[in-house]
Amino acid sequence: MADQSFDITPTEGGVLAPAGFRAGAVAAGIKRSGAHDVCVIDAGSAVPAAAVFTRNTMAAPPVAVSRDAHSDGRLRAWVVNAGNANACTGQPGYADAVAMAGATAAALGCEPVDVGVASTGVIGVPLPMEKVRAGIEAAALALGGSAAHADAAAAAIMTTDTFAKQAACIVTVDGTVYTVGGMAKGSGMIHPDMATMLAFVTTDAPLSPGACASVLGAAADVTFNRVTVDGDTSTNDTCALMASGAAAAGPIGPDHPHLPAVAAAITRVCADLARMVVRDGEGATKLVEITVQGAASEADAEAAARAIAVSPLVKTALFGADANWGRVAMAIGNSGAAVDPARVEIVFAGITTCREGTAVALSEEAAAEALARDEIEVVVDLHLGSSTATVLTCDLTYEYVRINGDYRT
Amino acid sequence: MADQSFDITPTEGGVLAPAGFRAGAVAAGIKRSGAHDVCVIDAGSAVPAAAVFTRNTMAAPPVAVSRDAHSDGRLRAWVVNAGNANACTGQPGYADAVAMAGATAAALGCEPVDVGVASTGVIGVPLPMEKVRAGIEAAALALGGSAAHADAAAAAIMTTDTFAKQAACIVTVDGTVYTVGGMAKGSGMIHPDMATMLAFVTTDAPLSPGACASVLGAAADVTFNRVTVDGDTSTNDTCALMASGAAAAGPIGPDHPHLPAVAAAITRVCADLARMVVRDGEGATKLVEITVQGAASEADAEAAARAIAVSPLVKTALFGADANWGRVAMAIGNSGAAVDPARVEIVFAGITTCREGTAVALSEEAAAEALARDEIEVVVDLHLGSSTATVLTCDLTYEYVRINGDYRT
Repeated sequence: MADQSFDITPTEGGVLAPAGFRAGAVAAGIKRSGAHDVCVIDAGSAVPAAAVFTRNTMAAPPVAVSRDAHSDGRLRAWVVNAGNANACTGQPGYADAVAMAGATAAALGCEPVDVGVASTGVIGVPLPMEKVRAGIEAAALALGGSAAHADAAAAAIMTTDTFAKQAACIVTVDGTVYTVGGMAKGSGMIHPDMATMLAFVTTDAPLSPGACASVLGAAADVTFNRVTVDGDTSTNDTCALMASGAAAAGPIGPDHPHLPAVAAAITRVCADLARMVVRDGEGATKLVEITVQGAASEADAEAAARAIAVSPLVKTALFGADANWGRVAMAIGNSGAAVDPARVEIVFAGITTCREGTAVALSEEAAAEALARDEIEVVVDLHLGSSTATVLTCDLTYEYVRINGDYRT
Repeated sequence: MADQSFDITPTEGGVLAPAGFRAGAVAAGIKRSGAHDVCVIDAGSAVPAAAVFTRNTMAAPPVAVSRDAHSDGRLRAWVVNAGNANACTGQPGYADAVAMAGATAAALGCEPVDVGVASTGVIGVPLPMEKVRAGIEAAALALGGSAAHADAAAAAIMTTDTFAKQAACIVTVDGTVYTVGGMAKGSGMIHPDMATMLAFVTTDAPLSPGACASVLGAAADVTFNRVTVDGDTSTNDTCALMASGAAAAGPIGPDHPHLPAVAAAITRVCADLARMVVRDGEGATKLVEITVQGAASEADAEAAARAIAVSPLVKTALFGADANWGRVAMAIGNSGAAVDPARVEIVFAGITTCREGTAVALSEEAAAEALARDEIEVVVDLHLGSSTATVLTCDLTYEYVRINGDYRT
């Protein structure tokens, strides 16, 4: 069966835009600021679900608990706390994560194995479980489906984020309307292998568990896994999808003609959230889109783009609005990608600075003006093949140093 | 034949400490500051020599020229300019590097193939060859063997360095005295695969060309290749050794009983210089020695130590005097090294912060005091095996951002 044509339109409502979900958020006293820090997202019953997690070998206890909960392809709810990552907390930390699932299940009236658990914040400090338990009970009592509930949930998962990150869209295919929503947090310890520390995506499309897993994995690969703030991969990164099925009779399995449309909508929400995560990169003043084209392979394109995106020298030059493309050349040369120095072309903020591996005379005034913008593109053409990859990053600033020199204290 | 016992004693004189070498340095007008920027180091005749170079595939023209010059295992001289790296300058840049060797050879009365060429500074700008040629001629006329000449040479190769880097030592073995000297520059774009951008080591030991190559490679592997400032590998990194043979009748080949003593002295000079490079890391306030022990393999130990050393989150925490060992755990988990989270032990500035993967209660006051020092050790024990590796790095500071947001302008 041929794929159907479809249109994607942005909408409001964040993680609660799709029918079938409620959220509740409260201030449990885990964050010193007194802001909201515990939230529950509830699908009402166990629904098809998928999640991708950090590949950091020091993955935190909540990641281990959530991996197990996902093993049957179904979840009813997620419970999330911010302010404490429950990471490097050993066996007691694992017991705490299990207890979070248990408390949530008791409050909702379901099985603990239907609850995913996510934590974000400081590493190596035991969770204040009395506060967490009280927070979970209060969050379950606060459940609702309004935009205000979505806003509160998106705020409750923030740590050093400066704004809440929500996205949603509608896709219409063959007369059926599907909605996808999501929220994310993350602004430091952000790097491929689950760039945002936490992202929750919902849809009313009646996806099968298998479709959930394949669509989410593919979406994350080209969105969250293509952004980097500081090259450090968190111990807690989690990106989760739940499909309520409220939009239509299902199920949408791997071969369903509507799947490409729903997958595109999910990818769109993930891309919007990933972009917000980089835009809110700790201390960032600029969003930088790095594209490497003309690579001999997609792996080479990605390696070169990542090497540029993580280079502190490139990132400080961008902060300084300095068209220092030589540092881009240096990063490419370190990436392991196949490179012929005599063919490299570098276009920095729309200005060709290097062609055939050699400097091109440029107007420093024009360059300074182009680099003063808050969204900058760096395009490298290796002129060796036809593969392309794009990675999003941000600049490296005084404020990044301040935030991270001073985070725990 | 058994190795001889030996003693190593520090001495003065830098790169001119060993007999048989002269240096000349002048201000040719390449640096805007008007400081010395061209120097020549002359062994008087072609002597056994070796060099290791950047593995960056965008390696600069002077690297290509010097690789060729080294192919016969002998060199008479090095010519070095600072202020312009002659990198990403294409075929004209290669012609300029060849011309530097030619001008030096003409001034000294030797063959161009006996001259190594090194450049450091801004990438992507053509060398001002008129100034360079005049500088080379003047430097050759300024050649001398005094400590002042060594000081001038060490200053002439600096870019963003805040101090000149010189080291020297004497080793006595079996009644023979050998001297090793060296100088280095580098404070940014510093990462394994030739950490210091430029280092020149001299000895009066009558090493054979083969001994030069093996000793220098081994010394660089455990010194310059084990330091990192910002994770970026330069396009110009060069570490060179010349052996005048003035100390004794030679040659000292690979099986000579004095070789271990001379190798130890060369390694000592390289280690001293590498430590100075990190100490002078751009904007650095702290020297940080990261040791990973108990690893299943040396590759694992090195991977884990490097991952910690390049993490911006670890480096900003060190700047902030924050015992944020959770970021060390995170970095280990991303390193690819075999890790059992339940066995990890982390000792941060002498304070055990994590044992069996779990936080250990610590006095924040004691931690703050320990972290206020300007040399800090981080020791990680994976408790999986017996392999160890140490990497030197520095903290990541406001000043690093300032220097690199503002380098070209």
